[in-house]
Amino acid sequence: MTAPPTTTQTARRGATTAPPPATDRPRRPDAPHQAPAAARPARQDAAHGAPAAARQGDPDALTRGALTAGAPAAGFDDVPRVLERCRALVRPALEEAVGRLHPWVGEMAAYSFGWCEVGGAPALASGGKGVRQALAVLGAEAAGAPERAGVAAAVAVELVHTFSLLHDDIMDGDGDRRGRPTVWKAYGTGPAVLAGDALFALAVETLAREPGGAPSVRNLSVALGDLVRGQADDLLFADRPWTGPERVRPDEYRAMAEHKTGALLGCAAALGAVLGGAGPETVAALDRAGRHLGVAFQIVDDVLGIWGDPRVTGKPVHGDLRERKKTFPVLVALGSPMGGRIAGLLESGDAPETTAALIEEAGGRSAALAEARRHINAVETALADVPSTGRATDDLRSLLGYLVRREV
Amino acid sequence: MTAPPTTTQTARRGATTAPPPATDRPRRPDAPHQAPAAARPARQDAAHGAPAAARQGDPDALTRGALTAGAPAAGFDDVPRVLERCRALVRPALEEAVGRLHPWVGEMAAYSFGWCEVGGAPALASGGKGVRQALAVLGAEAAGAPERAGVAAAVAVELVHTFSLLHDDIMDGDGDRRGRPTVWKAYGTGPAVLAGDALFALAVETLAREPGGAPSVRNLSVALGDLVRGQADDLLFADRPWTGPERVRPDEYRAMAEHKTGALLGCAAALGAVLGGAGPETVAALDRAGRHLGVAFQIVDDVLGIWGDPRVTGKPVHGDLRERKKTFPVLVALGSPMGGRIAGLLESGDAPETTAALIEEAGGRSAALAEARRHINAVETALADVPSTGRATDDLRSLLGYLVRREV
Repeated sequence: MTAPPTTTQTARRGATTAPPPATDRPRRPDAPHQAPAAARPARQDAAHGAPAAARQGDPDALTRGALTAGAPAAGFDDVPRVLERCRALVRPALEEAVGRLHPWVGEMAAYSFGWCEVGGAPALASGGKGVRQALAVLGAEAAGAPERAGVAAAVAVELVHTFSLLHDDIMDGDGDRRGRPTVWKAYGTGPAVLAGDALFALAVETLAREPGGAPSVRNLSVALGDLVRGQADDLLFADRPWTGPERVRPDEYRAMAEHKTGALLGCAAALGAVLGGAGPETVAALDRAGRHLGVAFQIVDDVLGIWGDPRVTGKPVHGDLRERKKTFPVLVALGSPMGGRIAGLLESGDAPETTAALIEEAGGRSAALAEARRHINAVETALADVPSTGRATDDLRSLLGYLVRREV
Repeated sequence: MTAPPTTTQTARRGATTAPPPATDRPRRPDAPHQAPAAARPARQDAAHGAPAAARQGDPDALTRGALTAGAPAAGFDDVPRVLERCRALVRPALEEAVGRLHPWVGEMAAYSFGWCEVGGAPALASGGKGVRQALAVLGAEAAGAPERAGVAAAVAVELVHTFSLLHDDIMDGDGDRRGRPTVWKAYGTGPAVLAGDALFALAVETLAREPGGAPSVRNLSVALGDLVRGQADDLLFADRPWTGPERVRPDEYRAMAEHKTGALLGCAAALGAVLGGAGPETVAALDRAGRHLGVAFQIVDDVLGIWGDPRVTGKPVHGDLRERKKTFPVLVALGSPMGGRIAGLLESGDAPETTAALIEEAGGRSAALAEARRHINAVETALADVPSTGRATDDLRSLLGYLVRREV
């Protein structure tokens, strides 16, 4: 049960001047490693090829852990090609859908997809990796259907993902995404709210137009509800105290991450499977896999945000501590006998190196890694319930493994 | 074809400080005559009982025009009872749906429905009349189904309506609604964006859960797309010049009003009919009726906003001129040979009485009344395509007539 914030609390979020101050939410699979190009070291994009140096020297590396054991012998080398295949397959349908929008709203949508700059000039930036669209296409293929069966699902989840980024950036006051101003920063808050609404409506319309679309719309609406629930908790967590009975518990954080990040990943694969004609067990298994993936991804990101090598992550060392984020390892440590001291350091923002060391000493890092491993195992368990369809199932397994295959 | 605004234009809307300055959009059937209680004369709420004084003395009164000719002999006396019956029928389902939201988001939703104050205390304010929910219930009854068949449609359209009010208030910078602070003003912009998203998702989920929900979700998604399109045009119109080739033409304004106001009214009645098992002709006819109703309502509102009796409308005399709104009569007058002079007066905001007289002299008032009558007639024509089901069809006809039955 989450207490509604007081008026004072909401005022702190910017009741009269919006967007509210940046409190830096956890990021999601498409966004985290898309630091501004200028600021990104050449070797940063580990997910696109895992530099050899990054694979060495860290005894906690999850890469060679639970998931790789079940991965195809070829490893993850094929994943960028799979992502590219899915992006190429989905792009025309996504462009067609966005083309149906009001021209002004359509420009904001194209800007957020990384297709154009403000004013409509060809884009200089690149879009996301397209993880969700790939999950949708592979979900359809895992159901034994041809790849095109997953396209409507892929379009819908990409639209929903972009809608949620647009609105979350307003709520979080984030001014930059993928090295460019966010939509609210570039076009204004009101227009950004409107563009998000338009993408949301377009996603629903896209699925509703499909023959037999009712079950898929039902799936999407559950994910949408979870997305909102996760974002609400995330906003409220920022205002909760560091210690005491009102502090955020790690299990609350895990539920938030499942809702905010996992629900749409699960929905993507599940929707593809629904449109591919899969039975309810397969659909449910893919949904579970995506949800656990979301939690694992978030917690791995949390560990990287404190202890990650800036040369690999592209993020400043101890960045999450400087930004006073209530991430999983921090929340575990705050619940330990050392919690009071850690809370004091976090509040002051001083000595992040000492804080990181104390969080590790308090068991925050090992608990986070154990939690991430549990969810990676759960992804694997869920995938075992998906009947093998050869290459498609292998590709899906590779993609899911690849997404948490980051050195911690 | 609407040109996307330049960066300067978007900056004027508040690219970095949101919400953007109030430009006072046209209002919609539930909202327009809900002025702050303190400011509202006792006899203001014409739609709730048409004070006798208001019926007299105005040769342009639409009341006894096209629509009343087709209305049941009993006139509109039953309408408040019909609205009350529908509100009582729908309220439990609406409360159940809102109860499924995150508690904090649920409080914002309950606040916007007028059920509670900030913090959750029982409401002192009253909600809207519930026009859309009534249209949905009557749509189901017009299809020959029992009233309960329309409840899910009623819940969905009320949720969508409230979502759109929440987000539009952010976009328009409106700080008051029905005599209380708007949600963004009371809870902050970010939370208000989130609450709107939650209501939107809940609306989709509500329909998707219904057996055979696919066609109804399709209908809703078309209305949602139109809503966004109408709001986009409305935002852009504010930045267009008063005169010259870039000025807003009356036909663009009419399309905006159909999208922004008519689409959801049409959708409400049509969705009720879909869930009530009506055939496609009936569904399409009800959708058309609602769309024309929206345009008629908006244009009647525009006439009242310039020439309405403040004792009846509860709004300051010439209020829309002082606020420099680009309403239908103004746009017609701006296209006349007197357009340049009127534009100068509108721009300065001086001498609203002279401006009103010039707009009337330029034919703005008579053109608006003629346009409203055309749409009222079109409502009647559309209703003629709905097979009569006795009381339900009569109630529907009364309700539609009642909504444009305001003295102009």
